[in-house]
Amino acid sequence: MNRYALKIEYDGTHFHGWQKQKNLITVQGSINSAVEKTIGNRSDVVGAGRTDTGVHAIGQVAHLDIKSSWPPKKLENAINYHIKPNAININDVKLVDENFHARFSAIKRYYVYRIFIKQSSLTFDKNLFWRIRRPLNIDKMKEAASHLIGTHDFTTFRSSMCQSHSPIKTLDKIQFSTWKNDRGTIIEIQLEARSFLHNQVRSIVGTLHKVGEQKLTPADIKIALLSRNRQNCGPVAPPRGLYLKKIDYKTDLFT
Amino acid sequence: MNRYALKIEYDGTHFHGWQKQKNLITVQGSINSAVEKTIGNRSDVVGAGRTDTGVHAIGQVAHLDIKSSWPPKKLENAINYHIKPNAININDVKLVDENFHARFSAIKRYYVYRIFIKQSSLTFDKNLFWRIRRPLNIDKMKEAASHLIGTHDFTTFRSSMCQSHSPIKTLDKIQFSTWKNDRGTIIEIQLEARSFLHNQVRSIVGTLHKVGEQKLTPADIKIALLSRNRQNCGPVAPPRGLYLKKIDYKTDLFT
Repeated sequence: MNRYALKIEYDGTHFHGWQKQKNLITVQGSINSAVEKTIGNRSDVVGAGRTDTGVHAIGQVAHLDIKSSWPPKKLENAINYHIKPNAININDVKLVDENFHARFSAIKRYYVYRIFIKQSSLTFDKNLFWRIRRPLNIDKMKEAASHLIGTHDFTTFRSSMCQSHSPIKTLDKIQFSTWKNDRGTIIEIQLEARSFLHNQVRSIVGTLHKVGEQKLTPADIKIALLSRNRQNCGPVAPPRGLYLKKIDYKTDLFT
Repeated sequence: MNRYALKIEYDGTHFHGWQKQKNLITVQGSINSAVEKTIGNRSDVVGAGRTDTGVHAIGQVAHLDIKSSWPPKKLENAINYHIKPNAININDVKLVDENFHARFSAIKRYYVYRIFIKQSSLTFDKNLFWRIRRPLNIDKMKEAASHLIGTHDFTTFRSSMCQSHSPIKTLDKIQFSTWKNDRGTIIEIQLEARSFLHNQVRSIVGTLHKVGEQKLTPADIKIALLSRNRQNCGPVAPPRGLYLKKIDYKTDLFT
């Protein structure tokens, strides 16, 4: 048996999330179908992280077992050929050790959340950003974010549907970038951790947004975190601004 | 009669260009319908420039005459309301002098052409860039572009369908910007002139692309220009990378 790692990009807009589901179009389901057309039999891809409906990926990673041996580039091209016209693209394929596991071998996950500040609606990319009319106070958002760094009980920022055994996670970094283009201002918030709770990124971004609007203070975020109470979370930010950007493993899989 | 100037943004992907046509969905036709629903009678918008099928606009300008008097912001919101779900947005409206003409009063037009360098296909924005697999030599493209600046007979870079009286135009500037994002490299080429010939920007970009690939030299571009022969133009670049970015008038209409 040969194990391959796939680096996957997708526009999540028209998918019911990553996870395969009966009678619904999902990313995993679409890749599984393309794989079946490629190799002639069923073999499920195993993803590093599930993404919800409408959430995108630039660097999702999955592994796949195949009996026959394929040159990685040929496998990549064949799956991409069969996946059309879906908004998914396999950007790289590598042959990996049979002990490699896309989910359990991951040592770090990077998510980015993209906000577009623009008075009028987004004509070109409405499914790719959370569009907000008024400027946000980034300095206050950064100060609020600093309270979340480190190991904490993140119950406040966790979906009630979360299946994780423990609400305790270590958030390594929250990094802000902002730039202007010819239509408005983009704010990108990158979060890094070994793993995340369900809805953790969108819950944090939705709450930081309230700080950016100056409806909450940075100190309120610390109080919300310590309360370990979902009631103190701001409205969860919409999925369309969220991207699974990168997964790190012990060795650099993809260049 | 009150004359209003409209600043218009649109994703040209699913429109048969700007110009209204019978039985085809066009940008002008869609705005005309929304205006009719707004004011209760027909009044055609007059655009600063026609754009072809698939070409986008960030700052198209049009004027519109209305008998009754509307607060500009209210008119903007009403037209936008009626234009949904089309990929058009009126970003600003100003009351202007009756002598203002969107097309004839324009003193400068800015077009940008966007190229995405990426090995695999564009999952998120395939209609918004010309995607090219291999890096281009930007220095050679800049050198080639320098031969086109100034007043020239642009017959080589003009569509055979062009209705302009003269092929002589003055190209003020060709400016290159390049930057990387998390998926690849973007090259943006901005061209500035009082007015352009039909297909002039896409013809120039298509020819500069050949220089970037090093299939033509910068000197070949000078020879092509001087030949005043359409045969010496490279393949016309696809419409999806082209944006009408801005129109200048004697006074700053929009801030």
